[in-house]
Amino acid sequence: MAKVGIIGATGYAGAELVRLLVSHPTVDIAAISSVSFEGKLISEVYPSFFGFCDYICRTAEDVVEKSDVVFAALPHGMSQEIAAECAETGKIFIDLGADFRLDSEDEYKEWYNGEYSYPELHEEAVYGLPELFRSEIEGKRIIGNPGCYPTSIALALSPALKAHAVNTEGIILDSKSGVTGAGRGLTQTGHFPEANENFSPYKVASHRHTPEIEQTLSKAAGVKLNVTFVPHLLPVNRGILSTCYAKLNYGVDEQQIRELYERAYKAEYFVRLLPKGQTACIRNVKFSNFCDISLHIDERTGTLIVVSAIDNMVKGAAGQAIQNMNILLGLPETTGLEFVPPAF
Amino acid sequence: MAKVGIIGATGYAGAELVRLLVSHPTVDIAAISSVSFEGKLISEVYPSFFGFCDYICRTAEDVVEKSDVVFAALPHGMSQEIAAECAETGKIFIDLGADFRLDSEDEYKEWYNGEYSYPELHEEAVYGLPELFRSEIEGKRIIGNPGCYPTSIALALSPALKAHAVNTEGIILDSKSGVTGAGRGLTQTGHFPEANENFSPYKVASHRHTPEIEQTLSKAAGVKLNVTFVPHLLPVNRGILSTCYAKLNYGVDEQQIRELYERAYKAEYFVRLLPKGQTACIRNVKFSNFCDISLHIDERTGTLIVVSAIDNMVKGAAGQAIQNMNILLGLPETTGLEFVPPAF
Amino acid sequence: MAKVGIIGATGYAGAELVRLLVSHPTVDIAAISSVSFEGKLISEVYPSFFGFCDYICRTAEDVVEKSDVVFAALPHGMSQEIAAECAETGKIFIDLGADFRLDSEDEYKEWYNGEYSYPELHEEAVYGLPELFRSEIEGKRIIGNPGCYPTSIALALSPALKAHAVNTEGIILDSKSGVTGAGRGLTQTGHFPEANENFSPYKVASHRHTPEIEQTLSKAAGVKLNVTFVPHLLPVNRGILSTCYAKLNYGVDEQQIRELYERAYKAEYFVRLLPKGQTACIRNVKFSNFCDISLHIDERTGTLIVVSAIDNMVKGAAGQAIQNMNILLGLPETTGLEFVPPAF
Amino acid sequence: MAKVGIIGATGYAGAELVRLLVSHPTVDIAAISSVSFEGKLISEVYPSFFGFCDYICRTAEDVVEKSDVVFAALPHGMSQEIAAECAETGKIFIDLGADFRLDSEDEYKEWYNGEYSYPELHEEAVYGLPELFRSEIEGKRIIGNPGCYPTSIALALSPALKAHAVNTEGIILDSKSGVTGAGRGLTQTGHFPEANENFSPYKVASHRHTPEIEQTLSKAAGVKLNVTFVPHLLPVNRGILSTCYAKLNYGVDEQQIRELYERAYKAEYFVRLLPKGQTACIRNVKFSNFCDISLHIDERTGTLIVVSAIDNMVKGAAGQAIQNMNILLGLPETTGLEFVPPAF
Repeated sequence: MAKVGIIGATGYAGAELVRLLVSHPTVDIAAISSVSFEGKLISEVYPSFFGFCDYICRTAEDVVEKSDVVFAALPHGMSQEIAAECAETGKIFIDLGADFRLDSEDEYKEWYNGEYSYPELHEEAVYGLPELFRSEIEGKRIIGNPGCYPTSIALALSPALKAHAVNTEGIILDSKSGVTGAGRGLTQTGHFPEANENFSPYKVASHRHTPEIEQTLSKAAGVKLNVTFVPHLLPVNRGILSTCYAKLNYGVDEQQIRELYERAYKAEYFVRLLPKGQTACIRNVKFSNFCDISLHIDERTGTLIVVSAIDNMVKGAAGQAIQNMNILLGLPETTGLEFVPPAF
Repeated sequence: MAKVGIIGATGYAGAELVRLLVSHPTVDIAAISSVSFEGKLISEVYPSFFGFCDYICRTAEDVVEKSDVVFAALPHGMSQEIAAECAETGKIFIDLGADFRLDSEDEYKEWYNGEYSYPELHEEAVYGLPELFRSEIEGKRIIGNPGCYPTSIALALSPALKAHAVNTEGIILDSKSGVTGAGRGLTQTGHFPEANENFSPYKVASHRHTPEIEQTLSKAAGVKLNVTFVPHLLPVNRGILSTCYAKLNYGVDEQQIRELYERAYKAEYFVRLLPKGQTACIRNVKFSNFCDISLHIDERTGTLIVVSAIDNMVKGAAGQAIQNMNILLGLPETTGLEFVPPAF
Repeated sequence: MAKVGIIGATGYAGAELVRLLVSHPTVDIAAISSVSFEGKLISEVYPSFFGFCDYICRTAEDVVEKSDVVFAALPHGMSQEIAAECAETGKIFIDLGADFRLDSEDEYKEWYNGEYSYPELHEEAVYGLPELFRSEIEGKRIIGNPGCYPTSIALALSPALKAHAVNTEGIILDSKSGVTGAGRGLTQTGHFPEANENFSPYKVASHRHTPEIEQTLSKAAGVKLNVTFVPHLLPVNRGILSTCYAKLNYGVDEQQIRELYERAYKAEYFVRLLPKGQTACIRNVKFSNFCDISLHIDERTGTLIVVSAIDNMVKGAAGQAIQNMNILLGLPETTGLEFVPPAF
Repeated sequence: MAKVGIIGATGYAGAELVRLLVSHPTVDIAAISSVSFEGKLISEVYPSFFGFCDYICRTAEDVVEKSDVVFAALPHGMSQEIAAECAETGKIFIDLGADFRLDSEDEYKEWYNGEYSYPELHEEAVYGLPELFRSEIEGKRIIGNPGCYPTSIALALSPALKAHAVNTEGIILDSKSGVTGAGRGLTQTGHFPEANENFSPYKVASHRHTPEIEQTLSKAAGVKLNVTFVPHLLPVNRGILSTCYAKLNYGVDEQQIRELYERAYKAEYFVRLLPKGQTACIRNVKFSNFCDISLHIDERTGTLIVVSAIDNMVKGAAGQAIQNMNILLGLPETTGLEFVPPAF
């Protein structure tokens, strides 16, 4: 049994990690930490855990010391020191924050206003989206776990871009996320009477996930591309749905598109390519590590529309982090992640 | 006091007409009808009306006979006969369905699988979107009241298209609607446990509102254009939010765009152009006849993003129908429609 | 046109007062105040008001000076000084907080931990539940506007208690409120992901509205009685539904109960006694000043069950405050309050 | 691996059984049936199951033939024939419907308007609430799986009644259920725009679960008792919360009550007695087989208030059915049921 630890366990992503790791058959939670609730039981913060998941919140140092695998679910800028400690002591480090996602320090500076304190760690770190970068992940010890929006979009568009089936200009990404995406911290936007029965875009064409999205799509396309990305806040707890629009290249038809995606994902347990006539939706992936993808062609305008849906807290955060851990530990990738999404 | 009647009063659009017309200061509801509930009180169908709005549902014939202004809120294909009767007897007819919205009978055939029984009525009918076609509406007696999605989109993009500020190709319209948009009829999609905590596109690039949207945008642009339109179902009762994407033409900047919209809407009570930095959302227009519009520029890709929000049952249906009635009756256009949208 | 002012206009009850008073035909809003947002437009706090309801938030002193009628929507303990100022200058004062609701200073001390600074004002103040105390309200100048839960419960049980039709012991009041009842202030309980898809009692048998409820029911019964009151938090924005249980006295039957309530409320516009077979619910009163009441008899146990529903922000706060103002100004009681509750 | 089958697999309770049994480590789903969807994949009805849970819906006969354990999730009146077939062939039969819950055929006639076709089967059948009747369940082959409301109430009040700590008269049970409780069938009440933002009692003091509740509470009390039971419809998908009121007997204090419950449930994995100061709520038990219970005393009126919360589809239906199966198969009772309820 590998010993795992969670730094930042009382945020939403951290709490979801706790929930999933408790049920993982081949790891043990060795320690968890929280700055805000140090010394308290996590079940005092999340009483749904009461009675059988009553870990005490300790310090980040405790977690690093006691664990073979360290997960960090922290605001950006706070993971680099912890990564360095893990590197020194040979521990696996999986960062659910943004510090190890971007190849380019310039982009990190521009969008996150920070810098790379340990460039050699960034050299070593790999972007942990297994369906696209599995071979690079294997054997690594520092993982930048992808953002929620970028996961949904990268899986939606990579096959078409890799095959040069769509134009790299004019890509429009209209994404919608549940409120847990904004975390446990209180905001007026997340106050029930103002989020409920509401729907709104936010950070229009200026969200920090933009460079991460472009990084992955550019790798797929083989050229640097820019996208228009608009996130929206949905009045649901969980889930991200991205509606992705790209111009079909000349001569590409629906059959070709479908074959591209079938080839790309036929061996991927966690990507479900829906049959023609079905449409991806949030309900069908909730509480699971699946990414559902549906393909649609607008013949009238020559546009490929790919709809992808994930649970933002699972495939978009904690589940994908565990998927990465499974790879690094040499476990079957689906271990502890074979959830059947509830029908309602 | 003008006498008004509502045919199809027990559907959602019909019931909303009843609610708004009861409070209108210069008209009286003379009769309402319903095929499903003939002989019953509308307050038996909608007990929120109990005690002071207890009209008996009669036949369509009764409504036409007793009213000076006839509203019809019927499935498509069922309004033309009623329009003909109104025309014969000199009554005003305002159709909330789709029968009088499209100029082209071919498009009506293609998308609605019907035909125009009284071509002369279609000659006379005008598309009732007052902010864009007010001068054509004045003095008419048959109005095709716009669809909900088309209203939100036409108001969002017409100023930019009229001024040739954006490209007519590659327009992407990503719209999201509350569940009332699908009406009172029971469907699995609208069953609470399946709509709640869910979000999904539907009729991707194949919704019947597409030709209506293209008709208005083409008129604005002065050329026939096609759009990619994807509607989504939101887990809220009311509201439509459309996120509209168009490529900026060479040299057009944010300042110019803002001035175009200010000019277009400065005299329009029901269109609220939001100041820079604010974003349109559903909450702020609910239960009102407002259309809120916010303008956003993605400098990195040269894209104009216009976000518009309406209450689908008010500005998207019953409220706009009354706005049209006010014009036809020579009343101030805002009569009976000056609702303050609740803060929560 | 009477000049009205609102102190505490940026809380939820204050904002609802603004919304309703803007549309009131015979008063003008002279000034509003807010400690948190002094100098800002209320439409910056609530953008739903943008464009036509853009009052600047000033100080409480400004409001008192400029208004004939002063509404205060403040936390308890903060209204007494303002009431004193209003009394000195002969202005009407309507307090939406708790400072003037309880006859007994001892109970105020026990439940609110405060004291009565101006006993003579409390002598003059009257509890503003018009359907029960109209004759006492007329001609007064200080009103303690009832709490939301107490309004729903007092209207539900007073007729049965006045007629000695039910036992004064063993009354159980199981109430459920929407999240706006807890106000605009941010709390973990009101954070969308924790309130949504949740339901919970709170302050079980210890809520501050208990003495207010008992005061009114005791007056109705003619004896001092105690009740068991348990409020619950509902995942909706607006509305309170109270399910009230009382033992029928010997020999009292359903017909007698129904007649009692018909007699009590037949002349009351804002109380809708539902016909046998119907059940009060939140949907049918939302955005209105109605209190819907349904009567049910459990023959197997001899229990009267009265269900009452109000909009907590209207009949439970701002609407009732305006109803009181109308009485004090000699206006028809329904002026500005004849909202048709929407069907959805 | 035991072979299990599900009759009525496409209703909500049946689909939840499929979801939970797919992950059960020591049983295999041998067959499922559905009258409405015979010949279709269950994943066509519930696309959340797509790709890894694609059972074909067959006939009830197929299920009985292929299974060692047969679950039936059918409308009442339809399980007796299937039970008889199972009895003949020595199979275990677990009925999620109402046919085997009531000891008294008279009560079944009165409330369900049916009769007992095989009295000997009813002799053999046992009411499957393991925490209260475990010793009777062991070794049996026909189980009447309890209703959702009765489960929440029986666990809430049995300890107090068994110890004669509360009066058997005047028990008030105010229960609130999510919309899945009403099943997959379409109704106006369950239509999203009418259920959302609404809350209402229904079947006030006349719900069919009343005799089942009274049967269990009477057994606990040792005398026949009647209760007042009022169910309400909550705008959430899952969960039941029951607020249960009973008069404390003379001299019984909070400490005694708490000790009674601690003794009753200290060995029960699935009942979580919350510490003083906490309140049971729906969020903390969703997607789990837990029943959370909190105890509250109203000292002012001498009333015990017990709040219990379950997931209506798990502990209130499918989860409890599997718990019963585990007992009958001699498995640890928690096998396949150790879900950590998500924090959000």
